[in-house]
Amino acid sequence: MVNPIDPTATGFLLAENRNMPMHVGGLQLFEKPEGAGRGYVREMYEQMRDVEEIAPLFLQHPHRSLRTAGQLVWQPDEQFDIEHHVRHSALPKPGRVRELFELCSRLHSTRLAWERPLWEATIIEGLRDGRVAMYTKTHHALVDGVSAMRLLASVLSTDPDERDMPAPWAKRPGAPRPVQHDPPADVSLADVSAQTVRTALAIASEAAGMPGALVRTLNRSVRNETSALSLYAPRTILNQNITGSRRFAAQDWPIERLRAVGRASGTTINDVVLAMVSGAIRAYLLELDALPETTLVSMVPVGLKAKESHLASSDGGNAVGSVMVQLGTHLSDPADRLAAIHRSMSDGKQGLSAMTPTQVLAMSALGQAPAILAPVLRMQGIVRPPYNLIVSNVPGPRTTHYWNGARLVGTYPLSIPINGMALNITCTSYDGKMCFGLTGCRRTVPRLQLMLGHLDAELTALERAAGV
Amino acid sequence: MVNPIDPTATGFLLAENRNMPMHVGGLQLFEKPEGAGRGYVREMYEQMRDVEEIAPLFLQHPHRSLRTAGQLVWQPDEQFDIEHHVRHSALPKPGRVRELFELCSRLHSTRLAWERPLWEATIIEGLRDGRVAMYTKTHHALVDGVSAMRLLASVLSTDPDERDMPAPWAKRPGAPRPVQHDPPADVSLADVSAQTVRTALAIASEAAGMPGALVRTLNRSVRNETSALSLYAPRTILNQNITGSRRFAAQDWPIERLRAVGRASGTTINDVVLAMVSGAIRAYLLELDALPETTLVSMVPVGLKAKESHLASSDGGNAVGSVMVQLGTHLSDPADRLAAIHRSMSDGKQGLSAMTPTQVLAMSALGQAPAILAPVLRMQGIVRPPYNLIVSNVPGPRTTHYWNGARLVGTYPLSIPINGMALNITCTSYDGKMCFGLTGCRRTVPRLQLMLGHLDAELTALERAAGV
Repeated sequence: MVNPIDPTATGFLLAENRNMPMHVGGLQLFEKPEGAGRGYVREMYEQMRDVEEIAPLFLQHPHRSLRTAGQLVWQPDEQFDIEHHVRHSALPKPGRVRELFELCSRLHSTRLAWERPLWEATIIEGLRDGRVAMYTKTHHALVDGVSAMRLLASVLSTDPDERDMPAPWAKRPGAPRPVQHDPPADVSLADVSAQTVRTALAIASEAAGMPGALVRTLNRSVRNETSALSLYAPRTILNQNITGSRRFAAQDWPIERLRAVGRASGTTINDVVLAMVSGAIRAYLLELDALPETTLVSMVPVGLKAKESHLASSDGGNAVGSVMVQLGTHLSDPADRLAAIHRSMSDGKQGLSAMTPTQVLAMSALGQAPAILAPVLRMQGIVRPPYNLIVSNVPGPRTTHYWNGARLVGTYPLSIPINGMALNITCTSYDGKMCFGLTGCRRTVPRLQLMLGHLDAELTALERAAGV
Repeated sequence: MVNPIDPTATGFLLAENRNMPMHVGGLQLFEKPEGAGRGYVREMYEQMRDVEEIAPLFLQHPHRSLRTAGQLVWQPDEQFDIEHHVRHSALPKPGRVRELFELCSRLHSTRLAWERPLWEATIIEGLRDGRVAMYTKTHHALVDGVSAMRLLASVLSTDPDERDMPAPWAKRPGAPRPVQHDPPADVSLADVSAQTVRTALAIASEAAGMPGALVRTLNRSVRNETSALSLYAPRTILNQNITGSRRFAAQDWPIERLRAVGRASGTTINDVVLAMVSGAIRAYLLELDALPETTLVSMVPVGLKAKESHLASSDGGNAVGSVMVQLGTHLSDPADRLAAIHRSMSDGKQGLSAMTPTQVLAMSALGQAPAILAPVLRMQGIVRPPYNLIVSNVPGPRTTHYWNGARLVGTYPLSIPINGMALNITCTSYDGKMCFGLTGCRRTVPRLQLMLGHLDAELTALERAAGV
């Protein structure tokens, strides 16, 4: 019952250290169903805990021994202890969102132990508005942001009256239900399956292991000056080594507001997301007197139609690539920033479509796994940060969903800061909302929560500029 | 402002790994003062957090670099972030002691990060009886159990009306107040200062570094057959490698009950503590069908009068030694077990007094720092566990104490399980109570909380046997 661990997962396991845990997280907010009693949260916790059988993915842990010739393998946990993995916690009074973020920050700061399956879930009570929160934490060797979102979606229902629904880690008979994740037409990473992302990543870890022809390609790519490839990002306070403790903040805005700005300005929702981030980071760095004179560059994973990319992914779907988007943080006008982002993103996508499949893979590898690639880059004499931060956008369900009657009102990703990349912003669209999750190194990115106010102000400024 | 780290502390830092964090913990329970408002716990948290100046011990973190020639040094944390260290948390409903133990278990399971000062404190609300809990966690490189107890005691007052009292980590003008820790006459570790323990420990880490004459002495000692030195303990489920997650349980009993048993049976309070442990472990191992045929051996740190030990400690006080006490777990009668323990303890103390100073130091080193010494022992071909568990007894204040009007009603130690020693039982006497803290590896010591019931049953059985 021992399974080999694929090179990508191995890469994430080996890249991990105390300052750089390699798990992704998710914060879900639920509204209790009508008529929920005083003990509702405990019942929800017990439903999550008392599953009949755990899915194999959530039962395996990494193992390495003489018998495996020193290779990391997946091995089932013979002493699986569900109470270690599914936890019940509470917020201190007054139970504001602030207390919730603090708890999530702490939970996201601790590493998963290899002697057990690499996941935890915490059901959280004590929000003063009566909502229930769930924080989940899963090692990047098991899932990435996209597959984590799908997994969650696969146990939700659009029917508020459905009951006896399984926990995400429960083994389900037959194949998992198809996920309703139809993304808005202009949101990226549209139909990219987790497997595709993983395939691309496998290249990265192979590259790290044997820097041959691929690395030479990569090396040429990263020195190329097209905007898809430009790696001339300025140094910022975000591009330092990090510590192991995290700071998390999250908020959502109606997608309709973003769409209106996009429509009025001839840009996409994703462009508007990036413009919000650009304005917010500009304001944040200005306050800290740390804004560089040249624009910050964001790595943005994008979905590519197979035809455009000349590259069919293993499941016949689309491939994923990365675009280096110049955020225009040096521009003082919100409309100028949005226009610059739109241009940079268009150029980048064109650049990607002109690349060879290997170049696309190398770029996406670079984007997805900089922690793994960093030594390779250093070896090639590339010491400037290839980009300043990662902003990704993972589509989620478009309609209201429920878990055993509890209405999901928001879902916010917690991602992985790494050395040199202390801030990660990941968005999830859900039920008409664009949910932002900001994850930073607690020391390197002080007062991260200020950025929420800046994001809000920037959306308002963009609306004003676009005349909506 | 860089200070060298003494060899003992270095030993604790270097012995640490993910499965074996080297921090000691404490759980304190407080009753709110009369008239405390709804926001009392938050106010208490803020008082703990908002200290004017932090004591140097709590500002330093370990650092190693080229500039320090690879040596570990203490360095002040230039970006000290009190909110990382002092935290506010809550228990989920129903807020029983069970939920408190679960939270403490989790908090005790995570490692302290070296890039920050090596301590944390969490103020915990949500106990249904209205009490407030505080869990503290301090690296063994900073304090041991005795000095942690003293530090806490030094900020408490016997005056319920005293206010403006500092947090334990606040810098205080002048020397710390003398600690009222007069132990009951028959409780061990009586006047042993932390410094003494540390001096003894330094030997251990030196021994690990250069196994010369001292190791030969140690080697002779551990093969000696007197009960103070016997290291022929049976293998038990407690003597396996451990994982990084912990299980904690605690309870207290009136010292008067223990004293009555001791008086009626001609034994000491400490003997009765050990007899409670013996009976509880016997019952626990019987349930798991894992009781060895021969007696379990406990390492028990004891205070030695300087005259007896032929050894003045560095501060002119008493020295500390270790006795290997045969717990009599193979005996079915509680009175027989108590008698066996009393005999073994007496023999052990006599044996210690006959030892040379170096032998005493070697023994105590062995007892206090088995994690450090383990490689040395293995090198000497000693592969059986030298003992099965550690039971220590740290005297605390004898009278009721307060912190800013909040009455301390109990104080329970959380200690350090290590590979081969998965369970640690530490007691603290306070205000007429004997407070037991049981800390085990979550995987190796299943259902640890059952031992609380066994301890209680054993005390009752001892009372019946002694006719009190």
